[in-house]
Formats: sequence, C-alpha cells, structure tokens
Amino acid sequence: MNGARALITTLVDNGVQVCFANPGTSEMHFVAALDTVPQMRGVLTLFEGVATGAADGYARISGGPAAVLLHLGPGLGNGLANLHNARRAVVPLVVVVGDHATYHKKYDAPLESDIDSVAGTVSGWLRRSLEVTDVAADAAEAIASARIHRHISTLILPADVSWDEGAAPLESAALQTDLAAVDASRAEAALRSGEPTVIMVGGDATDSAGLSAAVRLTQVSGARVLCETFPTRLERGAGVPAVERLAYFAEAATTQLAGARHLVLAGAPHPVSFFAYPGKASDLVPDDCAVHTLAGPVGAGAALAGLADRMAPTETAATAELARPALPSGPLNVSTSADVIGALLPERAIVVDEANTSGVLLPQSTAGAPAHDWLTLTGGAIGYALPVSIGAAIAAPDRPVLCLESDGSAMYTISALWTQAREHLDITTVVYANRAYDILRIELQRVGAEAAGERPGPKAESLLDLTGPTLDFVRIAKGMGVPARRVGTAEELADALQWAFGEPGPHLIEAVMPSIAG
Amino acid sequence: MNGARALITTLVDNGVQVCFANPGTSEMHFVAALDTVPQMRGVLTLFEGVATGAADGYARISGGPAAVLLHLGPGLGNGLANLHNARRAVVPLVVVVGDHATYHKKYDAPLESDIDSVAGTVSGWLRRSLEVTDVAADAAEAIASARIHRHISTLILPADVSWDEGAAPLESAALQTDLAAVDASRAEAALRSGEPTVIMVGGDATDSAGLSAAVRLTQVSGARVLCETFPTRLERGAGVPAVERLAYFAEAATTQLAGARHLVLAGAPHPVSFFAYPGKASDLVPDDCAVHTLAGPVGAGAALAGLADRMAPTETAATAELARPALPSGPLNVSTSADVIGALLPERAIVVDEANTSGVLLPQSTAGAPAHDWLTLTGGAIGYALPVSIGAAIAAPDRPVLCLESDGSAMYTISALWTQAREHLDITTVVYANRAYDILRIELQRVGAEAAGERPGPKAESLLDLTGPTLDFVRIAKGMGVPARRVGTAEELADALQWAFGEPGPHLIEAVMPSIAG
Repeated sequence: MNGARALITTLVDNGVQVCFANPGTSEMHFVAALDTVPQMRGVLTLFEGVATGAADGYARISGGPAAVLLHLGPGLGNGLANLHNARRAVVPLVVVVGDHATYHKKYDAPLESDIDSVAGTVSGWLRRSLEVTDVAADAAEAIASARIHRHISTLILPADVSWDEGAAPLESAALQTDLAAVDASRAEAALRSGEPTVIMVGGDATDSAGLSAAVRLTQVSGARVLCETFPTRLERGAGVPAVERLAYFAEAATTQLAGARHLVLAGAPHPVSFFAYPGKASDLVPDDCAVHTLAGPVGAGAALAGLADRMAPTETAATAELARPALPSGPLNVSTSADVIGALLPERAIVVDEANTSGVLLPQSTAGAPAHDWLTLTGGAIGYALPVSIGAAIAAPDRPVLCLESDGSAMYTISALWTQAREHLDITTVVYANRAYDILRIELQRVGAEAAGERPGPKAESLLDLTGPTLDFVRIAKGMGVPARRVGTAEELADALQWAFGEPGPHLIEAVMPSIAG
Repeated sequence: MNGARALITTLVDNGVQVCFANPGTSEMHFVAALDTVPQMRGVLTLFEGVATGAADGYARISGGPAAVLLHLGPGLGNGLANLHNARRAVVPLVVVVGDHATYHKKYDAPLESDIDSVAGTVSGWLRRSLEVTDVAADAAEAIASARIHRHISTLILPADVSWDEGAAPLESAALQTDLAAVDASRAEAALRSGEPTVIMVGGDATDSAGLSAAVRLTQVSGARVLCETFPTRLERGAGVPAVERLAYFAEAATTQLAGARHLVLAGAPHPVSFFAYPGKASDLVPDDCAVHTLAGPVGAGAALAGLADRMAPTETAATAELARPALPSGPLNVSTSADVIGALLPERAIVVDEANTSGVLLPQSTAGAPAHDWLTLTGGAIGYALPVSIGAAIAAPDRPVLCLESDGSAMYTISALWTQAREHLDITTVVYANRAYDILRIELQRVGAEAAGERPGPKAESLLDLTGPTLDFVRIAKGMGVPARRVGTAEELADALQWAFGEPGPHLIEAVMPSIAG
C-alpha cells in the first residue's frame, strides 16, 4: 500500500479516528485513501485554525489525540494560533503537514517554505518522513509521544512519501515514559507546617478526582486551594468540589495570593502576570512565599491523589450544592446574561468559554449549576472557542456544548460555524456582542498609556471599536447554515437558549451587551 | 518620547503612512501613540491575515511599504500565509510584532512563543529592538532594507521598549544597495543566436515599460515572450504590450516552452511545476534549452530596458487593441462570466485575481479591455484576494478595484469584507460560487490517486465539496456591512457589476457557477 493509506491505517489502529482537515494538492493521496479506511472520520474545515482548534477541543474532552491535516507551510501558519493554545492546554495532538515531494523541494516552487522552523515552535515531537517505509513507524511514534507527553506531534509528509508504494501499517510504538518521579516531601512539609499555604491545581488535576484530592488536603491542613487562571478543562458545578480560579488581572491575583507562605503547584505553572505592565511585578508570588512544585501538568492529579491518600485518608471532599440563580429579567448585561446561563445550563454541558469581559460574572452564576466541564483560553490566542466547540462536540456527541464567544474573538475563526452545521453538531453559541475589543479598552488604561501622556484619541479608539459597520452575527451565522437569533433582554436570551438547547444541531444567539469598559 | 511614538514618527518620516493593525495588550502604547502622529493612518482588521494581505496589496500598487502591527506569536502566525504570498510577490513590507516586555519573557506567560523562528521564515530583515534608544534606528533600517531589497522587514518590539521614554525619531537610514550588477551578455548572445528563444518576464519587469522592452527585443530577434505564471502586478489591456502567461498546469506550460533552445529569465524564476506529480518532471525547461538569467525580480525592468535600448533602439513595441467582448446572455459559466468582466471592466481598474478554476477564460476575455493591472496569487497560499484588495484600494483611492474571488478561498479571510466596509473602499468583489474546492477535484485526478487504486469515495469527495450547507455569501457580506447580490445569469452579473461600479464603497456579487471538474 502507499504511504497515505499506511498512515491512515496506523492512525486508526492506534486509536486516532478523527481527522480535522483542510487539504491541498500535496495531500490528495491522503484524501483519496480516506475511503479505504472506514474507521477514519474526515471533518472538513474551511480554515486551518478551525481544524487545529477542533483537535484541541477533541483532545480536551476525549483525552486522546485527533489528527489534523494541513497543507504545507501556509496551512500550518493558519493553524498556528490554535496550535499555540493546544500546546498551552497540554493536550495530545497529531498534526500531519503535507509538503512538496522530496525531490521537488529544491526547485523552490511558490508554496515552498520552511515548515520545520514554524512547526518546531509548537511541537513536542517533530519529524519529516523521508521514505515510504518509515511512514507507519513515524506515525505510531508520533501518536505514542503525543499520548504520553500530552503534546503536539508533527509529522511532515512529503507528497511522494505519501504516494509511493511499499508501506505497511504499524499497530503501535512502544515508547518509554520519562515522566519525572513525584517528590511530594516538600509539598507535604508545607501542608504540615501550619503556615498559610495555597495549593494551586492545574494540568490534569482539574478534574473531579484531582480537585477532590486537593480539597481533602485543605480540610486536614487549613491550606486554601486555587485553580490556575486558564485550565484546560475544569470540572465544576453541583457535586464537584468548588475551586476559585486565580484572577486574570494581576491586581486581583495578588490579593488572592496575599499572605501565603507556601505555594504548592499541582499541575499549575508558577503564577505570573499574563502581560507585563509598567511598574508592576510580573511574578505574582509574594516575596516571602516559598514555591513547591508537586507536579507538572501531566500526572498532577495522580500526585495529589497520592498525597491526599497519605495525609487525608478518611476525608471526603466538600462539594458544591445544586443552586441555580433565578431567571432574571430586563436588559442584558454581564450580570443578567450570566444568571440566565446559570439558570439554564443543561446537565453534563461542556462550556467553551471565550466570553472575555462579558463573562466576568459567569463563575459565580454557574457555580451551582449541574456538573459540567469548563474549557478556557489556555494560550491567550483568541479565536479558539468556535473551533474547540467542534472538537468537543465530536468527542462527546451525547453532551450539549455551550460556546460562549466574544464578538471580536469570533471573527478570527468564524468559518467554524459552517463545519458545525455540516457535522450537525449540538453546539449552542452565544456571541456577546458588545461591539468592541473591550478587554483592550481596559488594557489600554492598565498599561498606563494615558499616564504616559498618550491620551488615546479617535484613531486609537477606532482600533478598539467594532462598530461602523456593526457586525450582524445573525446574518453571518445563517450565511453559514447555522440558525440564529438576536437578543437584547434576559427574557429573550432565556427563550433563545431554550430554543437552541431544545433542537439538535448548532444554533447561534447574538446577545447584544453593553461594553463594560465604557 | 517613548519608543512607540518614536517608531510611528520614524515610519511616517520615512514614507510609511498606513498601518494595517490587529493589536493586543502588548501593542497598546503603539495604539495610544497613533493620535500624536497625524500622518499615520491606522486601519483595523479583524484577523491578522487580512492585515498582512492588505499590506501586500498596498505595496503592489504604491510601490512602497505599509506597516503591519501584529500581536505576539499567534498574531504573526495568523498573518503568516499572506506574508508568504508577499514574500513571493517580492514587495516591501514592514511588520511590527509586539512582544512581551524584555524582562517578562523568562516567565513563559501564556502568550509567550518563539516569534523569531516563525518570523525568520518570511523575513528578509529581522531584528528585535532591545533598548528604547534603538527603536528609531532599527525602524529606519527596516524600512530602507524593505525598500531596497523589496522584502519583508520584521521588527519585534517588546512592550517595555515601546513604553520606555528616551527615544528620538530618525529621519532615514542610509543603506548600501548590494544588487548584483547586470551581465546581459549571455542574454544578448541568445537573442542574437537565431535559435528559438523565449524571454520570460517577471518581478518588476511586468509593468508597461518592462513589457515594452521585452516585446521590442522579440521584434528584432524573433524570440517569443512569456510572463511568469503568477506575476505580482501585470499591466495589460489596450495600449499595453500583450504577453501570455506561463500556464499553471505543467502539461500546458511544457507545450508553451516546447522547442525553445534559450530561455532568458528577466525577473521570472526558473519555471518549475507548481506541485510535483508522480512520474512527471518538476523542471519545465526542455532538456536542450539553455537558461540565461538576465536579472532577478528586482531590477529586471531596468535590465530589459537597457538591453532593448542597445539591441532595438528604434523599435516601438506592439500593443493590444481596445477590443471588448460583447455582453453575453444566458447561464453563468466560465465563458459567459469572463466575457461579462471583459465587457465591463472599468478604465484603470485594479484586478485582484483569485478566481482559480472559475477564471480560466479571463485572460482572453479581458485582453482588450482598457488598460488595467492584474494581481495574482504569487505564493499559492489561498485567501489573498479579499485582503490584497483592501491595500490596493487604499494605495489607489481613485481607481476601481475588482476582486475576483473563489468561494473556497474567500472563507480563509472573509472578515476582510468588514474592513472594506469600515474604510468605504471602492472594491467590487465577485465570489465565484461553484460550491467546491474545484481545483482540488482536478488535482485529485492529476496526482494519479485514482490510478493508484485509491478511487475517491464519498469521504474524499466530501472534503472537496462546499455544499451541505451551501455558503450564502450575500448574507455573509451583509452581515459585515457590504451590500451584496446573488446572480446566476450573464445578464444579472452585468447588471450587478454596473450597480457595484456605479456606487462608491464595497459591493459583493455572488456568481453561482457550475463546477468545471464535475
């Protein structure tokens, strides 16, 4: 068989059964081979950033990798921002980048570019298959490496390696895990010290089991628990231990960490400011606070469980009660919109959150909703929610997906709506239409630009403003095959959510909101 | 003044007066400083690929660079595909990538990534400003280098270097040009040989002057002239010497070059197949044809003019006659749609062509239209035409821009429509809606996938198909503030073009077409 067919067969034999694709000529043998491998599902996206984001969402929910098929360097470039987010999410992902035939590269044809350098910036594993007899082994190793290290494996596949005959699929690659053994002694000493201690959970410790372990430890030690600011997948809601997330704004995060003498990192990174600001510290840890790393993002849940079993063997973690807000009425704003979501969030929902400033009150309003998963913008590259929703919905077809999206962010990957429609995915998208890059209006003040004498004038304001013309998301969504409504009150949002949740397939609700930055 | 203000002042002092921007927090001082420099025009795009494509279009028409403002690595990634096209277009461009503050990078905050490696793949000049006192000199050198070498200069600007005080703008940087001196002797000998010779024009030789020089040389030597397949900006139409372009499909290009014993490259690259195909040659030059490089893409026009003045001092180049096709009637197809364009193309139009398979007959139908510029997909990264149209329209506000766009390609950078509306640009976009990646249907046959026994089945076909749901470009365009109509006949297309050309501002026409690949 040819390289393409061996590759696809190896993917499915190793449990990779979905491929998010935006192919071109150099990937035509891969495309042609798809029908020979019935277990592989090909999902077309109209832009590569949708494909990479979808694979991120798929991995966050299924736990395993999807494949992504990209066309040469420009296709990889288009997919890079959501690969960046996936890298920060610490999820497994197998990226196949088609390239020119090995003998064609020297001609510097128009689409020739340095794929390896670009791929290297996001990939934990990177290889170029140079012989058709290598393809299956390379693919198996890519998958194994992605699964073990929860990173992006990128396989660059030259067209001739794809079309040449002589390949055979490979069932699996045995890779040694080289995860560091956990040394819990410093964390344990901190928790036994009686001094103010914060356990910060992140990585794979943000599921119910990891959170329970952390909360059990707080119950025997008096420590507090916080969650990293942007968890990959946070379990929360009724029946799940409740944790507060570290705030995005450094000022608030500093308050949350104030007084701590020990910080135990269980899967979370060392807390730093998202951006630097003139005259403000980047490192958010108090000066006299010792930092103890219990575990990195992979294995953090197990490390916490082990520690909890030793220190708190008989404890049962407190969990959140079922307590929804009442359905509010009146104009939509950050408060009423959040309460509507909290009141109506379906059982077992997957929430993909890119609401940004419009979502500031969502954590409180949804804390007592039925148990759900909350996905966040791990890498800060906006335009992640619409694509990630696709992958989440494909990984969990029996669960409702609620995509909370800002208007500005939506426009980076808006064609995701078309793929949602084509695949009949049960995704409800709420676009918070405040007609501005509202977060940047706040950041413009925070970075001290005004204080520096550069009072923003009309040109600066124009670059943060999304009116003139106003984006009509109802038309845009319908133009891509997604039924849509516009709402301006809490009652209308509630009605629209019930409509969207009540019908299969994707729906979009444009929620017209005031800007919070003014 | 701070670094941001010095940078913007240096840009305008050196003739860079437009900045296509999609900023973030690390660029807020740049944004805040915009109003202090009245000569700088900031143009907001909703996706970075629109900003980079717009800068490409601006450079193609104005001849000089625009600035692009991008937000960290993910912003650069989103802009990369159209930077690839700009690199292949050999145009000057100044890219400013905001980065974290110098002291913040070590914290590996969520948006931290390897900007330098990604930028290096497209940049001819690349520097990271590390001190505020360097910013102006770095910017001036970036601009000078971009102008001289007609490449992409990328300046990475850390946030603190932007906000620190102590900078002063710089009027200009003196850079030595190191362009190779032209040795025309081999080209001249070939033209005097009496043997079958082809002059292939490209680079900066595709304007009226360069084409005239090439045609004068053919008139005294019996040589033929061809144009590179994807010229950056080809002058053509009535009163301009007519040249045939080398075909995209290798089979046709081989026929065009058959019999040539000498190939004189005047700004064009060595002709190679766009992609490799099993069993077919990548190099399109006949085996017994000698290749003589007169000039690379920069300076090719001058080299041709010098040679023509020596070899053909008294010749006047033949030019195309004004000869429009009659307005056709009946259903739209590749023939009728092309004839409508040829019949109605306005005087001095700028045509941005990404019509792909739907545009195969446009060259013939427009050959005798009033003189116009034809811009093409230089790098093969689709999604270029809508953004490039923005830059072309801003560079030439007195000229009509006709953007000929395929439905598949349109979706990569569809938010360009919003910027067209916001800036009230005189752009008429025709979206050829054949509801398929039609070129890939053809390529699927050409790469021999079927011959290899991998007959494409429904899964393969589904990845090349844009129905289910059908994209409604009228709704999408209106949703972004662009008036739009759908047409299905030649008469309707003619009416719609007259409507669009007759009103200022952007318009979109969805031209429903049959697939040519079936």
